[in-house]
Amino acid sequence: MIVLASASPRRRELLENMGIHDFTVRPSRREEPYDGTLEPGAAVERIALMKGWDAARSSGDGDIVIAADTLVFLDGRPLGKPADGENAKSMLRALSGREHQVITGVAVIAGGTPRVTHVTTRVRFRALSDDEIDWYAATGEPMDKAGAYGIQGLGGMLVEGIEGDYFNVVGLPVAALAGLLREAGYNVFSKGERG
Amino acid sequence: MIVLASASPRRRELLENMGIHDFTVRPSRREEPYDGTLEPGAAVERIALMKGWDAARSSGDGDIVIAADTLVFLDGRPLGKPADGENAKSMLRALSGREHQVITGVAVIAGGTPRVTHVTTRVRFRALSDDEIDWYAATGEPMDKAGAYGIQGLGGMLVEGIEGDYFNVVGLPVAALAGLLREAGYNVFSKGERG
Repeated sequence: MIVLASASPRRRELLENMGIHDFTVRPSRREEPYDGTLEPGAAVERIALMKGWDAARSSGDGDIVIAADTLVFLDGRPLGKPADGENAKSMLRALSGREHQVITGVAVIAGGTPRVTHVTTRVRFRALSDDEIDWYAATGEPMDKAGAYGIQGLGGMLVEGIEGDYFNVVGLPVAALAGLLREAGYNVFSKGERG
Repeated sequence: MIVLASASPRRRELLENMGIHDFTVRPSRREEPYDGTLEPGAAVERIALMKGWDAARSSGDGDIVIAADTLVFLDGRPLGKPADGENAKSMLRALSGREHQVITGVAVIAGGTPRVTHVTTRVRFRALSDDEIDWYAATGEPMDKAGAYGIQGLGGMLVEGIEGDYFNVVGLPVAALAGLLREAGYNVFSKGERG
């Protein structure tokens, strides 16, 4: 059985996009801390792994646990979710007209064996006017999202372009995850059968 | 009133992603021909404009018509929708392990004035195995899509990465369209009010 260790509805949708419809959602109960002594990619992988182990502890032996963590980095520093509307606006002002990086760490734990990787996508924002920032903050969309935007929603209009995997920005790098799942014995390219 | 001159459910979804919920769908009734004597971008713009004029003819004076056309180019040649499963497989084999271009032309016609632009996104496919190509063709997803894949579905797992606007690959470059709509007097960044 596939277990998704994430409460994110966007990650659920992306798993379904991969043709995986039969899975259980079992979010990790802890907020894992970011370890600033590590490189960004390693730090994000570590969080994904910790979330995965947390869910694996309450899963069966034959289960395959998928966990992920997505962070937005500007000048090498992580941007979390905004605390309030003003904080969201200041994040958006910082991102305006510039390129930042989105890193998702994704972990697959099967039969006690962890597999983990991370994918980096570069995202360029348009130069945003104050009116656009005020409008976007007022929509409420930024509030539960790292970096104060959601590329799959209204936030898509703020983005000039990306370089890399789009789905990684949404929260799950589907091509890389398909590779990890295959290594773990689950081949999404044979209609969800294992082999 | 906003008129979307396209039958594509994906374009409808993207308009809603832009916060535009109140629009009429009025697909162009003709299949516009591709003019191979033009540069790819100009040829795609021309098709979008022709679709737009077709819908504008049966729209009101105050309406704003949005039309678009998306084509996949490999080595400068357009790939249309596959004729059958074998044709889909041969397109996927041609795209495997390589980069191609997706160009969407988008036209906005308001008060008899046309505005048009096009956006190009580069898409890199992973090297696909024969099994993966057979599997993907068997899902049926390639059949109604230019280039025989849909990036927003199972086809997302075939893609290594993109460079440019993701939504352009899905069928509508939302940031560029927001710019054309603003020039036409419709500002999506003020909750859909005109001004």
